[in-house]
Amino acid sequence: MANPDADVYPTATERAAETVALHQSPEPLVLWAGWFCPFAQRTWITLEEKGIPYKYTEVNPFVKEKHFLDINPRGMVPAIEYNGRAIYESLILCEFLEDQFPSTGPQMLPSDPVDRATARIWIDHVAKSILPTFMRVVQSQDPAKQASALVEFYSALRTFAAEVKEPFFLGETFSLVDVAIAPWIMRDHVLVTHRGYERAAASDAWARYAALVETRDSVLRTTSAKEHYTGIYARYLDNTAQSVVAKAVREGKPF
Amino acid sequence: MANPDADVYPTATERAAETVALHQSPEPLVLWAGWFCPFAQRTWITLEEKGIPYKYTEVNPFVKEKHFLDINPRGMVPAIEYNGRAIYESLILCEFLEDQFPSTGPQMLPSDPVDRATARIWIDHVAKSILPTFMRVVQSQDPAKQASALVEFYSALRTFAAEVKEPFFLGETFSLVDVAIAPWIMRDHVLVTHRGYERAAASDAWARYAALVETRDSVLRTTSAKEHYTGIYARYLDNTAQSVVAKAVREGKPF
Ligand SMILES: N[C@@H](CCC(=O)N[C@@H](CS)C(=O)NCC(=O)O)C(=O)O
Ligand SMILES: N[C@@H](CCC(=O)N[C@@H](CS)C(=O)NCC(=O)O)C(=O)O
Repeated sequence: MANPDADVYPTATERAAETVALHQSPEPLVLWAGWFCPFAQRTWITLEEKGIPYKYTEVNPFVKEKHFLDINPRGMVPAIEYNGRAIYESLILCEFLEDQFPSTGPQMLPSDPVDRATARIWIDHVAKSILPTFMRVVQSQDPAKQASALVEFYSALRTFAAEVKEPFFLGETFSLVDVAIAPWIMRDHVLVTHRGYERAAASDAWARYAALVETRDSVLRTTSAKEHYTGIYARYLDNTAQSVVAKAVREGKPF
Repeated sequence: MANPDADVYPTATERAAETVALHQSPEPLVLWAGWFCPFAQRTWITLEEKGIPYKYTEVNPFVKEKHFLDINPRGMVPAIEYNGRAIYESLILCEFLEDQFPSTGPQMLPSDPVDRATARIWIDHVAKSILPTFMRVVQSQDPAKQASALVEFYSALRTFAAEVKEPFFLGETFSLVDVAIAPWIMRDHVLVTHRGYERAAASDAWARYAALVETRDSVLRTTSAKEHYTGIYARYLDNTAQSVVAKAVREGKPF
């Protein structure tokens, strides 16, 4: 097994394991996910929020098995197979679920096109400003670089939090903006333990928002035992991870 | 004037100038653009393709005038004002035009949700793989780095071209996938002149596709005189440009 990252705990645990167990029957929609993957969790939360019937299939994306490369040539989770056709990229999958199931469960993007564009602007902010900085805080080894990445991270969070209508990003409705960021709120304990991060140091609005999102049932239902995430982050914290994302962060490339 | 990039030719020329002249009356939709900006051109092409009524307003985004920062706090073109509300980010604006004007002119994303997701996967490939590599080829100063960026650029183009259904990306219909990449096809002469790039070195499919896209009328109607682009690229070619994108490329950050 060439990639050390392949050595992850094999299955979801705790509440996520219960959710997996409820989604083992054949369905037209198959979610290919890794229990540990924050990108997969976005798509999984959306399925749970909308109550779309789906079959959950666990994949270890670092092993690059042939059957999975046939589904996603990039070899990454999440992927969705729908009536035998495959698509991937977490945010595109979330939009797909809205497009394909417009009247199953709640609507997760506004109908008004300007409001919808505004939601996408903030999803784009999560993708382009918040996540890459999160990863730089984790992977930087030099304390000065960690510190400057943390300053940038706080700034990106503050900008985001200043737009939160409360309680959720768009107000009363839990939307794809909340989905886009939720998995990293569930993982920020890594930054607390190892990088001196505190939510309130971004802003009170951020701390309030993060505290609410982490209690959302769909988020909890797709979250495994904390200790199993720790082993994965160890390889990011010492910057030895060999995943596509870890390498992209090291090389300053988008992911 | 602090930013040397602010010193761009002030207005569109040639065919783009004719298009600007046709779009000076007040309309509910205002496009804020820079004639030279490839991101703005994406949105502009989409407006032209669909025949949506719009007013064109030229902005020099490097000057950061207060009235424009009120429209887009990021101070970037393109931005759209629609009935007094402002949105930005070129690809989000293209999707907005589809959402707001679903039955004005041709549909530029497929209706089937899986097909739509597939189109977005390839737009994402343009944004995450093709453009950052294009910019690295341009801004790298060390010949070895230029050469390795060019290899990566060819590879990203080849991957894209292998999926082209011909004549356009999705087949007969000119879509947002074509829009996403067209402005950089119109600017690849910079790479030919200064970086030894040749379309056919990516693949024949790429060369065929690029040759077709550059003759599309909406693309030509939004293109200015070639020599005016040259001055702008000079500052990217010697890596002295101070734009948000130039800095992001230097720092290995998304744009
Ligand atoms: N941009 C992708 C990123 C997905 C991703 O990075 N998934 C990781 C697991 S968390 C993966 O499959 N990695 C496989 C690898 O790195 O080889 C998305 O948003 O879906
Ligand atoms: N991600 C943005 C990029 C837009 C962009 O970079 N526009 C440039 C002109 S081509 C700009 O306004 N730059 C202003 C600056 O760099 O200060 C989009 O897709 O709209």
